Amino acid sequence: MSIPANLPLRNDLKGEEPYGAPQLDVPVCLNVNENPYPPAPDVVDTIAQRVREIAPTLNRYPDREHIALRKAFSDYLAKESGTRLAVEQLWAANGSNEIMLQLFQAFGGPGRKALSFTPTYSMYPEYARDTFTEWVTVPRNDDFTIDMDAAIEAIRTVKPAMVLVTSPNNPTGTPLPMDQTKALLAACEQADVDGADEGVHPILVVDEAYVEFRTPGVPSAVSLVNEHPNLAVSRTMSKAFAYAGARVGYIAADQGIIDSMRIVRMPYHLSAVTQAAALAALEHTDEQLSTVAHLRETREATAEWLASLTYKGRNLTVAHSESNFVYFGTFDDRDFIFNELLKRGVLIRDVGPEGWLRVCMGTDEEMAAFRKAFLEVLDEAQKA
Amino acid sequence: MSIPANLPLRNDLKGEEPYGAPQLDVPVCLNVNENPYPPAPDVVDTIAQRVREIAPTLNRYPDREHIALRKAFSDYLAKESGTRLAVEQLWAANGSNEIMLQLFQAFGGPGRKALSFTPTYSMYPEYARDTFTEWVTVPRNDDFTIDMDAAIEAIRTVKPAMVLVTSPNNPTGTPLPMDQTKALLAACEQADVDGADEGVHPILVVDEAYVEFRTPGVPSAVSLVNEHPNLAVSRTMSKAFAYAGARVGYIAADQGIIDSMRIVRMPYHLSAVTQAAALAALEHTDEQLSTVAHLRETREATAEWLASLTYKGRNLTVAHSESNFVYFGTFDDRDFIFNELLKRGVLIRDVGPEGWLRVCMGTDEEMAAFRKAFLEVLDEAQKA
Repeated sequence: MSIPANLPLRNDLKGEEPYGAPQLDVPVCLNVNENPYPPAPDVVDTIAQRVREIAPTLNRYPDREHIALRKAFSDYLAKESGTRLAVEQLWAANGSNEIMLQLFQAFGGPGRKALSFTPTYSMYPEYARDTFTEWVTVPRNDDFTIDMDAAIEAIRTVKPAMVLVTSPNNPTGTPLPMDQTKALLAACEQADVDGADEGVHPILVVDEAYVEFRTPGVPSAVSLVNEHPNLAVSRTMSKAFAYAGARVGYIAADQGIIDSMRIVRMPYHLSAVTQAAALAALEHTDEQLSTVAHLRETREATAEWLASLTYKGRNLTVAHSESNFVYFGTFDDRDFIFNELLKRGVLIRDVGPEGWLRVCMGTDEEMAAFRKAFLEVLDEAQKA
Repeated sequence: MSIPANLPLRNDLKGEEPYGAPQLDVPVCLNVNENPYPPAPDVVDTIAQRVREIAPTLNRYPDREHIALRKAFSDYLAKESGTRLAVEQLWAANGSNEIMLQLFQAFGGPGRKALSFTPTYSMYPEYARDTFTEWVTVPRNDDFTIDMDAAIEAIRTVKPAMVLVTSPNNPTGTPLPMDQTKALLAACEQADVDGADEGVHPILVVDEAYVEFRTPGVPSAVSLVNEHPNLAVSRTMSKAFAYAGARVGYIAADQGIIDSMRIVRMPYHLSAVTQAAALAALEHTDEQLSTVAHLRETREATAEWLASLTYKGRNLTVAHSESNFVYFGTFDDRDFIFNELLKRGVLIRDVGPEGWLRVCMGTDEEMAAFRKAFLEVLDEAQKA
């Protein structure tokens, strides 16, 4: 970073760094919650074929409304969540990052507030910063569930434009039970919004980036979209769908929310190549998601194994996770653990409250490497 | 559009519509300044092949810093503009729209101003609106050149964080001569910035979206980047490069400006597929740009032809264009001309000052269709 003082960088950005986990060339990367299994050869074939088909049209702008892709997401969600939504209730963007940015651009801004429950996804405050939205947080309980009394009270008194809740939560893996989603929705439907007219209510944004890893049978917040015009459910192809490199996020919400996002979206934000690549992967939905069950088992086994380990005479604490990562601790010096693992070629994530670490589920070989390295490091840490 | 009144849409977005020209299914589309010639079969092969090569990695996040692509743009600009820039002086995004948004996010915001010279690209005020930046304009001269005295005075008195100038200008096609670029730079280097510390100066953003269509031999503002840390030159693959569907814009600037944009960019904003597709097309630079000379000839012929026509007893005025479109007028009722052309299957653009229309250069067949339809419509208009 090298920014001369005479450049007109926004005053509040001075000293800030670009957001993002380190991108290191390490044998075992368990740090950014990717699905470790690459697309199968027949999926690769379809991706290349679908891109080949649209390549002769690339001199032309893409479909700004990406109708075919929104239809495909409607089909996907009908299957995945049991709820059929119309094209007008769906919208896609370059990763759920851009989905979130568009939400903040439409509903945030100076004089507006966004409320969330920490620890949670560390990118949220950046969306708020980038859109001049005030960022307000309420701490979660010690087990990382939401303190519902405090949450509902905050919705009433903070009067946010947006309430953000991640389910399963990142970095903790904590799911939001359906009755709590409904209670937050009800609180939003009764609350006022600072900086808006009377009769305006906050929207609830449920970020379901990791939702495909939840316990089978548990409903998604998507099942509430048809009944709640103030609910937006964000999703992504980056995680369970094993498609992080394609950068495709999407959102299910009432048409009013989608239309609000359409006002602030960049025209032609989603390239014809991205649309084709996303559609290609969606042709292979079952195959792309075929590793999810095994990753869920890996998570359960990893959580159990970590909980069985002792550190300085006490058992490790492992947060209940319904995601593809496990959050565990606490360590007197998590930097030591993190760095010693890295020395052994295993990259995990030091994020969230002091003392906790997050490891995402890799292949069986990667998890074996993690276990081996972690036992060595734990041993060293206890000697220190 | 259907946005209920109880949604917390930003107050200043109420009643706004999504930006964009109509996307209509019409035989002859001359409305969004695309290159009408599709990628050749061997380019299509390379695109499909390069996407196939990276497809097995799509479960992983892309290179956040897109180093290979920035190197390729460095090579391209060295060839196109004669100036060699380092990777740290280049940056790409999903269309120059996103490049501009990142600039506004880094340097604009409440209390900050952006200055430009109208008529100009109609998307600029939207970037300003979306980032709460005050949008200030100075009118161009009657021939659409910049009124340099007024421009320099405005830079001094408005104290903008950013000065935006499009060269060639859109919708008029007007180039910015090198001495004027230098004069604007000098004015910026001496001006203050409202909402910033003392000693901070505005940046000059030269939007060269259409620059490959300029008269051969004329230098690009890229040739000034190494000497001017307050200069940013925006470019795109959407126009001459015939790659609008891939959504790839880029910028050449001092590292300080690039690093400022890196603070506000979404992490992993540029997908692995987009990076691969852009690199594939850049392998075929000569081929992708092979139609530019002919489109330049088409522009000259079209401008000459339009200038030879009379409307209600006076010759049509045609703005001097160094782009792939021609701006012409004036008509008492441009909507009539626009709509009658559309009825005949020819879509052009009704944009900018009242009475003017913009037509972009199509294939020879498309231009013949335009001429035939336009003569009919002109005839009807004069009878009306």
